[in-house]
Amino acid sequence: MNPAAGPGRELPDVSDLVVGVLGGTGDQGRGLAYRLAKAGQQVVIGSRSAERAEDCATELGLGVRGADNARCARESDVVIVAVPWDGHAETLTSLRAELAGKIVVDCVNPLGFDKQGAYALQVPEGSAAQQAAALLPDSTVTAAFHHLSAVLLQDESVETIDTDVMVLGENRAATDTVQALAGRIPGMRGVFAGRLRNAHQVEALVANLISVNRRYKAHAGLRITDV
Amino acid sequence: MNPAAGPGRELPDVSDLVVGVLGGTGDQGRGLAYRLAKAGQQVVIGSRSAERAEDCATELGLGVRGADNARCARESDVVIVAVPWDGHAETLTSLRAELAGKIVVDCVNPLGFDKQGAYALQVPEGSAAQQAAALLPDSTVTAAFHHLSAVLLQDESVETIDTDVMVLGENRAATDTVQALAGRIPGMRGVFAGRLRNAHQVEALVANLISVNRRYKAHAGLRITDV
Repeated sequence: MNPAAGPGRELPDVSDLVVGVLGGTGDQGRGLAYRLAKAGQQVVIGSRSAERAEDCATELGLGVRGADNARCARESDVVIVAVPWDGHAETLTSLRAELAGKIVVDCVNPLGFDKQGAYALQVPEGSAAQQAAALLPDSTVTAAFHHLSAVLLQDESVETIDTDVMVLGENRAATDTVQALAGRIPGMRGVFAGRLRNAHQVEALVANLISVNRRYKAHAGLRITDV
Repeated sequence: MNPAAGPGRELPDVSDLVVGVLGGTGDQGRGLAYRLAKAGQQVVIGSRSAERAEDCATELGLGVRGADNARCARESDVVIVAVPWDGHAETLTSLRAELAGKIVVDCVNPLGFDKQGAYALQVPEGSAAQQAAALLPDSTVTAAFHHLSAVLLQDESVETIDTDVMVLGENRAATDTVQALAGRIPGMRGVFAGRLRNAHQVEALVANLISVNRRYKAHAGLRITDV
């Protein structure tokens, strides 16, 4: 049994689900698309420009397709939001219809940067994930995939990603699905880590991991012990 | 070399430092006092009541002493703040003189609880650690020891604590000292994880670990990978 499922429970089989990645041409989105496709998942990369998405998909290979964000959302069962924080609200507002009925996985980290490094931005809704939930009332919003190094995700010489994925959300079927998706990537586990009202600190913790990376010349990730 | 020190650096020898634990009769403080004393550190437990602190110290053994909070602060080189969030500002304000010139280690997690579990409280200063820094201008304030299970810390049958300790602060000598202290406890490493302005999310993440513990019947901790 997969301990990440929780006592007495199995995570669902997600191998047939189509996963879309909005902002899939950025470093984080591209890295996630690569890892999920390599694990055997059907993946559609979305971008504002269909042509750019198609070029990126061709480069990735592994059967990955490219499309504009709207088509990416329409054709996917689970949609990962990996757009820059700057365009987060605008992109989601424009995709409300296409994302209706889908599981949305927000992995956006609202951060600012100055000469002292990274710091968490205040978000009126509390967190990027809560903003997504407010803007997408017809979708099932979860939050996950925040603490992954885009460098490691994209490095083809790296076989396993030594990191747990904290998965947050209100709907257990949805968080189970996202946990199962994370678990398809070698080395990763999806671990349930609370409701969306506790997403802010999970997003903001990336600022700390950036400090860790600077100090230790590392690509830090997180493991949850005793699970 | 201890990788937690950072490239080309050693952590200091802290074996002669006296460590005070304010709120040392509570679960977290008592657990930390026990582990540090067991690792060979001189430890003074502080409480509002000297008698209560002395009773607790006697129970712990291992050379632990008990005192009222003011004396605990005066007699220690490094002072861990493990008081309840409710009394945080008041306790620190009253100890400003005694804590002058000391390294203060805030491990307080400002959390609220309702029927859906734990959630992060808003702190006007940003975090408990930043509140400590504002109230203690003559001390060197750091933040650490947030993600430890008080149950495991106090369980004498548990030999090693499988958790990294994120250490935050502005002053490198101080964060190095706190990292070295954490590293004395078998299984623990102290890992530098940023400045105090990024303490909020480290404190608040305890709400997520509480969710993990509920779901998985666990005593979750965190490991930082690639360090």
